[in-house]
Amino acid sequence: MNHNYNQKALQLHQDFGGKLNIISKVKLDNKENLSIFYSPGVGAISLAINESKTEIEKEKLARKFTLKRNTVAIISDGSAILGLGNLGSYSALPVMEGKAAILKEFADVDAFPICLNTQNTEEIINIIKNISSSFGGINLEDIAAPRCFEIENRLKEELNIPIMHDDQWGAATVTLAAIINSLKLLNTNQNIFTKNIENIKIVINGVGAAGVATGKLLSQYGFKSLIYVDSKGIINKNRIDLNNEKITLLKDSNIQDLQGELEDAILGADIFIGLSKANIVTKSMIKSMNKYPIIFALANPIPEIMPEDAKEAGAYIIATGRSDYPNQINNSLMFPGFWRGMLDYQYECDKKGIVPSKYNNNIFVKIAKAIADNVKDLNTENILPDMFDKEIVHIISNIIKDNNK
Amino acid sequence: MNHNYNQKALQLHQDFGGKLNIISKVKLDNKENLSIFYSPGVGAISLAINESKTEIEKEKLARKFTLKRNTVAIISDGSAILGLGNLGSYSALPVMEGKAAILKEFADVDAFPICLNTQNTEEIINIIKNISSSFGGINLEDIAAPRCFEIENRLKEELNIPIMHDDQWGAATVTLAAIINSLKLLNTNQNIFTKNIENIKIVINGVGAAGVATGKLLSQYGFKSLIYVDSKGIINKNRIDLNNEKITLLKDSNIQDLQGELEDAILGADIFIGLSKANIVTKSMIKSMNKYPIIFALANPIPEIMPEDAKEAGAYIIATGRSDYPNQINNSLMFPGFWRGMLDYQYECDKKGIVPSKYNNNIFVKIAKAIADNVKDLNTENILPDMFDKEIVHIISNIIKDNNK
Repeated sequence: MNHNYNQKALQLHQDFGGKLNIISKVKLDNKENLSIFYSPGVGAISLAINESKTEIEKEKLARKFTLKRNTVAIISDGSAILGLGNLGSYSALPVMEGKAAILKEFADVDAFPICLNTQNTEEIINIIKNISSSFGGINLEDIAAPRCFEIENRLKEELNIPIMHDDQWGAATVTLAAIINSLKLLNTNQNIFTKNIENIKIVINGVGAAGVATGKLLSQYGFKSLIYVDSKGIINKNRIDLNNEKITLLKDSNIQDLQGELEDAILGADIFIGLSKANIVTKSMIKSMNKYPIIFALANPIPEIMPEDAKEAGAYIIATGRSDYPNQINNSLMFPGFWRGMLDYQYECDKKGIVPSKYNNNIFVKIAKAIADNVKDLNTENILPDMFDKEIVHIISNIIKDNNK
Repeated sequence: MNHNYNQKALQLHQDFGGKLNIISKVKLDNKENLSIFYSPGVGAISLAINESKTEIEKEKLARKFTLKRNTVAIISDGSAILGLGNLGSYSALPVMEGKAAILKEFADVDAFPICLNTQNTEEIINIIKNISSSFGGINLEDIAAPRCFEIENRLKEELNIPIMHDDQWGAATVTLAAIINSLKLLNTNQNIFTKNIENIKIVINGVGAAGVATGKLLSQYGFKSLIYVDSKGIINKNRIDLNNEKITLLKDSNIQDLQGELEDAILGADIFIGLSKANIVTKSMIKSMNKYPIIFALANPIPEIMPEDAKEAGAYIIATGRSDYPNQINNSLMFPGFWRGMLDYQYECDKKGIVPSKYNNNIFVKIAKAIADNVKDLNTENILPDMFDKEIVHIISNIIKDNNK
C-alpha cells in the first residue's frame, strides 16, 4: 500500500510542482490598486510601523497591516525527516511544504516552509531570529535531538512570537490525550484499574525529541513512575554516556534506579510508549507487562510491534502512528488548532491593547485533556477524535485564547 | 492625492491583514490525499531527492517535486525602503509583500517576503545561502548601497539559482529602455540628433544602487560620455572619499576629469538621470543643457524637478517614477517577466537534462531593447509600454529562455 502511495506521490508532486500557491488577496490590474497596495500607499504603512518605539510595538503593527498576522514558518534543518533520518534541506522541503498545506486546509493558517542548509545550533538560532519578522509564529519541525531542545528553548527566550517544536509537543500532547482515554476505558470497562495515577508504570522507549517531550508532559500531568529507555538501555544514574537532556529526565524518572535493557524495563509495566524503531518489542515482552497492557507503538512507518502481534500477546489498547490501523497518534490533531489559537490570541491581545503572554507547557496538558474529552464513541479502537474533525481545531484554539483570560 | 492613497492603504491593509494568501493546491480532507501529499507518500519524494549525489542534482529534483519550481524570495534588510530610508525589517514587510503580490498578479510567480533583522553584509549573505533551498530565485530589494553590490555579487557566485537586486537592474533596465526610445524620438521627430551614441553626454545624479547599475548598463549598451554626481559633487579622480564601487565607475566615466557640482556636470548635457532626491534640479540647470534635453527625474515620491517646471525650462522628454505623470519609469515593467523567464528557463533545462547557465548583465540590455521595441504609439509622453500589458511579461521571459539556446 505504501508503494502505491509512493508512486502516486511522485507523479502528483511532479504534475503539481509542489503543494503551495502564494496568491494576492487583491487584484493589481489597475493604477489605483497598485497605488494603494504598493507605492506610494504602502509607504504610509512603512512609516506608521517606523513611528513605534519598541520591537513589541513594531510587531503589533506588523500584525495589524501585514501577512505576519496569519503566517507561520515551518522550519527544519532536515536532520530528522519523518522516520527517514538526516537527509538535509532539499529532502525536507516536500515534507515542510506538506505541513504548510495541512495548516491551511485544517486551520486557515498561512504557512511557508524554510529548510536550512546548516545544522549548526547557533547558526540555526541566529538565522531564525533574523528572518522572524514575516511570521506570527515559528513551527520547528524534524530537527534532531538534542539540538532541537536548545534551539526551541533559546528562541522562546529571545523572540516574542510563539515557538513550538511539533515533533516534541505535537507527539507529546496527542500521546497524553490517548493515554487519558486509555485509562478511562480501563477504569470504565474493566473496572479493575484501581491504581493511583502515581503508580501507573510507563516505559518510554526512544529518548529523542518526541520521547523527551512526551515524558516531560506525562510528568507534568502527574505520572510519577516513568522509565526511559534508549538504544543503550534504561536511563539510570550509573550511565556515564548521558547528555544534559537525559540527565535532567532522571529527576522525574526511574526512582528505583532500575538498570538493564528494554525487556527489564517493560516487566510489569502498565503502558509502553515506543518512539524508537521498527520491530524491537516482542510478544513475550508484552506478556511480561501488567494485566491489560496499553501499547503505543509509534515508530513510522513500521511500529515497534505490529498491532496484530501486540493484540495476540494480550494488549488491551494498541495505538500506532499509521493511518491504516485504528488509534493513529497523529500530530495533525494538535498543531493546526495550536497555531490557529496562537495567531488569533496575539491579534486579540493587540486589539485589546495588551501584550501577548508567552505560553508555558501547561497549555499542552489542557489541550490533551480537551482532545481526550472530544472523542465520539470512545472505545478501545477509537481513543482519539477524527483527524478531519474541524471542531477539534476550534476547541484547541479556544483553549489557547482563553488560557490567559 | 498621496494622502488619499495613504488613508486607503492603512484601512485596507488592516482590513485584509496583509496582501498574501498561501493556499494548498490539493484538498487534504481525506486520508488518501493526506497519505499521498504528506506521510507516508511524501517520504518517497524525500528519498528520491536524497539519492542524488550533487547539490545541482538535488536542486533539480526539488524543482521537479516542490514549490521551489515556481517560488522566488523577496529579501530586504529594510535599509533603503522605497524613498523613505533605513526603517528596518518590519517597515520593509508591507513593501516586500506588495512586491510578492505583483509577481503573482503580473507573472504567476509565487513569491514570499523575507525581511532580515540584520544589516551586516556577511550575515545577510550567510542567511540567504542557508534559506535558499525553498526558492528558485532570490530577488533582493531595498538594500542600501554599497552593501547591496557585495551581497548580490557574492550570492551570484556562491548559489546556483539566479539572484537579482531589483533596485539596481529593474531601474537600470527600464531606464535604458526609456533612453533608447527617447533617442529614437529625437532622431525621428527633430531630425537633428546627429551625434554618435558615444558622444551623447549623460549625467547620472545619485550614485546608490540604481545609479550605479544604470550607469553600468548604459556603458554596456555603448554610451561613453557619462558623468556621475553624488551628494559631494562630480565623481572624479581627485576625490579621496570614494568607495570601491565609485572608484570602479571612474573607468567608464568622466574622461575629461571634470570637477565641481551638479550644475557644472549638467552644463551641455544631453540626458539627465536623477536617482537622488527631491527638488535639486533647477530650471536654469535645464536651460544650460544641450538642445532638446531629456530629463529623467526619478526620485520618489517627489522628483528632482517637477515635470511642469522641467517642461517650462525646455525639456523635450520628461520621465519620473510617478504613476500620475506620463512616462513612469517603473521596475514592474521588468522584474515580473525576468522572474517568469528565469523560473521557466531553469525548469526547461531540467527537463532537457542540462544544467541551467548563470545569466550575465547583457540580458538586461536585451530586455531593455525589447521593452523599447514594444511601445504602442511611441511619442514624447509615451516612451514605455503600459505596465499592465501582460504581453511584456511574455516577451521578457522568452528573451531569457532563448538567451542560452
